[in-house]
Amino acid sequence: MIAVTFQGPGEVRVEDRPEPELIADGDAIVEVEATGVCGSDLHIYHGRVQIEPGFVIGHEFVGKVLAAGPGVTQVAEGDRVLGCYCTACGHCFFCHRGEFHKCDHGRVFGHGKTLGDLQGAQAGQVLVPDADRTLRKVPERMSSDVALFAGDVMGTGYHAIDQAEMKPGDTVAILGLGPVGLCAVQSAKAAGASEVIAIDTVDERLSMAESFGATPVHLTEGDPRGAVKAATEGRGVDVVVDAVGHPDAFDMACRLARKAGTVSAIGVYAERMEVHMGVVWIKALTVRTGHANVIGHVDRVLAMMDAGVLDPSPLVTSHMKLEDAVEAYAAYDRREALKIVMEP
Amino acid sequence: MIAVTFQGPGEVRVEDRPEPELIADGDAIVEVEATGVCGSDLHIYHGRVQIEPGFVIGHEFVGKVLAAGPGVTQVAEGDRVLGCYCTACGHCFFCHRGEFHKCDHGRVFGHGKTLGDLQGAQAGQVLVPDADRTLRKVPERMSSDVALFAGDVMGTGYHAIDQAEMKPGDTVAILGLGPVGLCAVQSAKAAGASEVIAIDTVDERLSMAESFGATPVHLTEGDPRGAVKAATEGRGVDVVVDAVGHPDAFDMACRLARKAGTVSAIGVYAERMEVHMGVVWIKALTVRTGHANVIGHVDRVLAMMDAGVLDPSPLVTSHMKLEDAVEAYAAYDRREALKIVMEP
Amino acid sequence: MIAVTFQGPGEVRVEDRPEPELIADGDAIVEVEATGVCGSDLHIYHGRVQIEPGFVIGHEFVGKVLAAGPGVTQVAEGDRVLGCYCTACGHCFFCHRGEFHKCDHGRVFGHGKTLGDLQGAQAGQVLVPDADRTLRKVPERMSSDVALFAGDVMGTGYHAIDQAEMKPGDTVAILGLGPVGLCAVQSAKAAGASEVIAIDTVDERLSMAESFGATPVHLTEGDPRGAVKAATEGRGVDVVVDAVGHPDAFDMACRLARKAGTVSAIGVYAERMEVHMGVVWIKALTVRTGHANVIGHVDRVLAMMDAGVLDPSPLVTSHMKLEDAVEAYAAYDRREALKIVMEP
Amino acid sequence: MIAVTFQGPGEVRVEDRPEPELIADGDAIVEVEATGVCGSDLHIYHGRVQIEPGFVIGHEFVGKVLAAGPGVTQVAEGDRVLGCYCTACGHCFFCHRGEFHKCDHGRVFGHGKTLGDLQGAQAGQVLVPDADRTLRKVPERMSSDVALFAGDVMGTGYHAIDQAEMKPGDTVAILGLGPVGLCAVQSAKAAGASEVIAIDTVDERLSMAESFGATPVHLTEGDPRGAVKAATEGRGVDVVVDAVGHPDAFDMACRLARKAGTVSAIGVYAERMEVHMGVVWIKALTVRTGHANVIGHVDRVLAMMDAGVLDPSPLVTSHMKLEDAVEAYAAYDRREALKIVMEP
Repeated sequence: MIAVTFQGPGEVRVEDRPEPELIADGDAIVEVEATGVCGSDLHIYHGRVQIEPGFVIGHEFVGKVLAAGPGVTQVAEGDRVLGCYCTACGHCFFCHRGEFHKCDHGRVFGHGKTLGDLQGAQAGQVLVPDADRTLRKVPERMSSDVALFAGDVMGTGYHAIDQAEMKPGDTVAILGLGPVGLCAVQSAKAAGASEVIAIDTVDERLSMAESFGATPVHLTEGDPRGAVKAATEGRGVDVVVDAVGHPDAFDMACRLARKAGTVSAIGVYAERMEVHMGVVWIKALTVRTGHANVIGHVDRVLAMMDAGVLDPSPLVTSHMKLEDAVEAYAAYDRREALKIVMEP
Repeated sequence: MIAVTFQGPGEVRVEDRPEPELIADGDAIVEVEATGVCGSDLHIYHGRVQIEPGFVIGHEFVGKVLAAGPGVTQVAEGDRVLGCYCTACGHCFFCHRGEFHKCDHGRVFGHGKTLGDLQGAQAGQVLVPDADRTLRKVPERMSSDVALFAGDVMGTGYHAIDQAEMKPGDTVAILGLGPVGLCAVQSAKAAGASEVIAIDTVDERLSMAESFGATPVHLTEGDPRGAVKAATEGRGVDVVVDAVGHPDAFDMACRLARKAGTVSAIGVYAERMEVHMGVVWIKALTVRTGHANVIGHVDRVLAMMDAGVLDPSPLVTSHMKLEDAVEAYAAYDRREALKIVMEP
Repeated sequence: MIAVTFQGPGEVRVEDRPEPELIADGDAIVEVEATGVCGSDLHIYHGRVQIEPGFVIGHEFVGKVLAAGPGVTQVAEGDRVLGCYCTACGHCFFCHRGEFHKCDHGRVFGHGKTLGDLQGAQAGQVLVPDADRTLRKVPERMSSDVALFAGDVMGTGYHAIDQAEMKPGDTVAILGLGPVGLCAVQSAKAAGASEVIAIDTVDERLSMAESFGATPVHLTEGDPRGAVKAATEGRGVDVVVDAVGHPDAFDMACRLARKAGTVSAIGVYAERMEVHMGVVWIKALTVRTGHANVIGHVDRVLAMMDAGVLDPSPLVTSHMKLEDAVEAYAAYDRREALKIVMEP
Repeated sequence: MIAVTFQGPGEVRVEDRPEPELIADGDAIVEVEATGVCGSDLHIYHGRVQIEPGFVIGHEFVGKVLAAGPGVTQVAEGDRVLGCYCTACGHCFFCHRGEFHKCDHGRVFGHGKTLGDLQGAQAGQVLVPDADRTLRKVPERMSSDVALFAGDVMGTGYHAIDQAEMKPGDTVAILGLGPVGLCAVQSAKAAGASEVIAIDTVDERLSMAESFGATPVHLTEGDPRGAVKAATEGRGVDVVVDAVGHPDAFDMACRLARKAGTVSAIGVYAERMEVHMGVVWIKALTVRTGHANVIGHVDRVLAMMDAGVLDPSPLVTSHMKLEDAVEAYAAYDRREALKIVMEP
């Protein structure tokens, strides 16, 4: 089968690989119909996340179940399904508490040996462990473009709002309008935010956020703090989503939040950095962080997308063939697309 | 000033009354610009809630602050304000926990001596105790028709969903599409429900619920249980709002809810009645009941109405003069209107 | 192997049965070291819960893993384990949300075909499906008497307090001081209740509740409502646990609760009954009901018992041999014991 | 009257001052019977918190109501009361949500003009604004030593655990065993922690924590990370309380927490500092910070102290006369006492 592999920084390759086979009773094999290129793939592409050369990459996929082990009960051969970006064992301390994203035995598709040694989904077929937990049937009317988001990007946008315990009527600011930030905009609006202030430097992304119901504010040409103050009688917003993952973004997030507000940091942090803890502490902020509990949210996210309450389809800016993955990565790297969907 | 008084079952009268005067430091006097007729007023009109003949009725109002005591800090003379349907002392055990609707010293406008001896708002002016807690400034662009809902009916619709701890993506059924039920439909949709099934026997109300995004189901001509099953793979909905207040409605609510689901009973119950506790218990339901914590929700409700996320204006089916209150009550009693707004 | 079987109302028998064998990959077989007689067993014994004659009964057990299927990862041959009273599939809508007690495929040990057709634990050996979820290792120092409670009775006491969302410093009343009620007393105290009022008619049980730190009040010779009022400045308690399951108990529970308080009904209800919904509604009560989510709580319950924060050992009033089960049931039926532990 | 005033870094003075008089309707005047010296007072003493020379300091007090304005309803002349360390207006955005510690008009006793210009409680008498919210009656049997803690130190210990949303059975680590840390130990135990690991460098404090039921671990001579791992199967604890307020403490807190755990930072932070956000983020931690919502907790804390569930009396290591305040500060500065109670 065809498969996209990492070769080294800046280099991916489309190769022929043997088709996967069922190993454990709970496994399924999915024939991929659509697979996305994600910001996390770019981290691999840039060599910031190190994986083995030759490893198949990709972790967003929709497809058809080709085969399922005897222990699989929730999906069956022939079902159209979507996959979550990672697996969860269902039995460890964390799974037992519903914190599937921190599963002790969780494996991430297409992220090399350190994250579970699980070959990726940018391929003709993909082996899916723990299929009952990792896969969901796609609602009948739903396009692959939309379904693809449930297992990663929209699940993360939903998580950003969910972990902030936002209530209907609250005010929200979203920092960073990449696909995750834009999905957070939609999630905040869907959850009843009375005001969503969306902040970025790219006009197209600001326009898209506005089309989703947000108030767009250009990071440098506009006045994010002024806009937040104007919208909240000077208080700051109830919830800030940091969808960037940079010390400056985190600092601004802390400053845009009201006293006793929440900063939901879903942008990736990997390093030591300076934080103004004086600001955090005197405002009595709550800071919530980390990867999204996509498996925990996927049923609700699918239901909302099926109802049209969430609709990520405007984020899909390009469709390409999987065999053109080299060009897809290059285009994504040049920021020419928000979300590229590739089809085998 | 002009005032609408209860005289006896089926009889209200428009009378001349002396204007109120400030008593306590925290009082304000509001010149009424708009006041609604509510289902609770009808309970009084029918003699089911007993109050003293001659008592001024009405508990929904928008108006202008004419005078404010020296202890009032949140509103000032000249401010356009809306009132909540009841007051709260701010210092008792319940207020301290934010359960303002169960305040030990709470007083309800226009409900006679047993509920605090506070003259009603269907009058030229109204005395407002604890003005800092009872009143809120009306956002600039907001019509009186809309603002009127924040202090009672929409606050109750919001409460119905809030106390059910509904999450975005949940499924909801609303039983009873009077003004409160219709506001619960809007609140559920605004909070991200993936499906709202709205049940009643009146076609106009079903149509209005549908226009708010719900799936309408006629109670007797349709099949509520079938509709709920079809929408939830046979499970039942996550949340049922009982906006009726009748044993049959409560029974149906328990049957429409999924296992471990929630019934939010905001319809009024005052009697002993038969409950199928076997159904409630084996399904492990949560039942939440009682008046709405309108003071606790009013800021968020106002923000959502100001943003257009909630919009009760379609519920206002008639405008009348306060001097025509006798006819207003008669029309409301004949169910010819969803919400009548009267203006002095 | 030896096994206790139901024969008909009032009749159990000790019989010889073939030893179980592993069926599914996730199964384990446990050699029973201790098994309890529970109030639910008495329902079967009395014929109120109908099961097939000859069915092996019992659902509380501690023992040693004799064999485990290839899919079992959390326990291994030779491990000393305790079992939860029911299984959960881990993949359905309810398990996915952590509501394991309402699993669509849950099976209860020793409760006949309608509850999953799973032979009981009052036997030499017991087949345990979904062993990774149903079993837990017993902490090293813990006696079988204590461990036995984690999978049912103490898990239910914990659940009663947990679902009431009691906060440290709250006041609690417990109605009914059978084993579950007494475990609820311990759970309330362990969770920081400032006052636990324990109500029953049996002096020994009142004394035991007192030894656990509660204020004992005799249901008929004392004055439960007076005691609650005296302890709460007349308000009523924050949380009432109904560990009885009778209309009178539920009615009293509603009357003992404060406004906006919670009634946690863990006593079993199976019938229609009269409820004073007027009292429930005007007080704005929350009523939470149903079986306990024992699988959801078992890790925390075990940790608390291991730390001595919870200690059910005083509830074990008799030890008997499994071969004397006929006498054990008769004695339990005569209410001569709180908890009988039987050993093969 | 006698009063302790700040003069400059390292210098306090006992002076004669005019007795306070009622100003607003909600004011009360309290004759002080006992007043504590707190760690915050030491910040003032050291000049790290800048206040005006001559300002009366102190914010912990128990006493008798000498006079109350006409708007005061919850306490009356002659009542024995305790005071919270700060006031709250009851009407602002934050008070409305129960976030009294972030009140827009909150004033802190004895902290100079920037924190509300409210003279302190280390004096013969103290003026108490918003008395209905700031004061509580002391339960009859409660000593002044104990009551003194409800309004500040124990309220903060309770807050540390409350904001971490600790559940009974969770594991907890407490970093820093000053009075607040020791109260957090008691609060965690009272709330049902199965394990509390208490970390400090001072043997006496470690011993006291052990006497409260914690496992003491010396910060440098012991192995905090090893102890936490041993107690949690290598996972880390569910909740870490940072009661220190230093970058090293925060860093250790993040390392001791399990994945998806919570760090409750009640130690004061005022500066920029380096944080290992990579650790925070990859573990998906929740960080909660800030001053304690003492007014929000005071009723429950008092109830728990009245019931003996919390008992801060061992922390009172010295009683002194208010006229010896100069020596009291010097002794406290030399760390010769955990809590000094001064009496006029």
